[in-house]
Amino acid sequence: MSRPAHRRPEYRKINKDLFVLTYGALVAQLCKDYEKDEDVNNYLDKMGYGIGTRLVEDFLARSCVRRCHSYSEITDIIAQVAFKTYLGITPSVTCNNPSRTAFSLILDKNPLVEFVEELPAGRSSLCYCNLLCGIIRGALEMVHLAADVTFLQDKLKGDSVTEIGITFLKKLDEKKYRRKK
Amino acid sequence: MSRPAHRRPEYRKINKDLFVLTYGALVAQLCKDYEKDEDVNNYLDKMGYGIGTRLVEDFLARSCVRRCHSYSEITDIIAQVAFKTYLGITPSVTCNNPSRTAFSLILDKNPLVEFVEELPAGRSSLCYCNLLCGIIRGALEMVHLAADVTFLQDKLKGDSVTEIGITFLKKLDEKKYRRKK
Repeated sequence: MSRPAHRRPEYRKINKDLFVLTYGALVAQLCKDYEKDEDVNNYLDKMGYGIGTRLVEDFLARSCVRRCHSYSEITDIIAQVAFKTYLGITPSVTCNNPSRTAFSLILDKNPLVEFVEELPAGRSSLCYCNLLCGIIRGALEMVHLAADVTFLQDKLKGDSVTEIGITFLKKLDEKKYRRKK
Repeated sequence: MSRPAHRRPEYRKINKDLFVLTYGALVAQLCKDYEKDEDVNNYLDKMGYGIGTRLVEDFLARSCVRRCHSYSEITDIIAQVAFKTYLGITPSVTCNNPSRTAFSLILDKNPLVEFVEELPAGRSSLCYCNLLCGIIRGALEMVHLAADVTFLQDKLKGDSVTEIGITFLKKLDEKKYRRKK
């Protein structure tokens, strides 16, 4: 997946509408394939995991992120660099526990739902954007970090914000942690 | 789908890798759902059609394209403005018949297959990027232009180039043609 370092960043940019509509078509297809919302959510997470494992190497190579020494720093990189790079938004980050292993990404805007007014009929438990959780989980696992990643709140379900929870499950083993030096 | 005219174009830009990998997941899902390549191709075309009908209004509002007076001009707009906007590439255009109703878009690069080395096993008739044909067909239909849009050549199938053929089926009715003035 590595590419020449001289490739200009703007070459990688595209208009997001095509992506957003294609993602909608993917979710619609899965809703057609699976009757239960839970199955659709799991499948989106699984697909996202696969995408995350492929995106992360390229992301580390391109983004020149510094070495991280805490879960807090890692979450900030996800919010400020990864989300900015791939979705053009920067979620705010909150810490959810005293041991600083659980964090939330608060999305004021969510480009993935720009064309979605509400969840499809009879799909009240659908996590429409669950692909994102899978991507984060897959990417973290590739840098030897196990995490639970789930939607805690979702504007599409009537919540006031959209919130993705990341709970790190293992102590950071710095020797194993692959990074851009 | 209309949005405020003051929204800055850069807001609409994202990194394309996420889109390319998500598209791959969509095609993989359809290959799982449909045994015959022809059915996958038709489904991608149908999905693309739906996307094209939604993209076109926004495209016309944003791109400020001039009024077109010929199929040749329309095809140039598709290649030079639409492909550039949504996929970051500019295919070259050739005309395929003396009556100037059939054209080809020649794609030297195809970002949608960046992570694809070859067609999946047993899927030799798959038109991997058939979504694009559907999008073009859907967008044209929304401006009252009927067209056949198909892949004529595909690098993934061993051809030297990737070529999308567009054959316009009706005379352009300028009164009906919706455009950005």
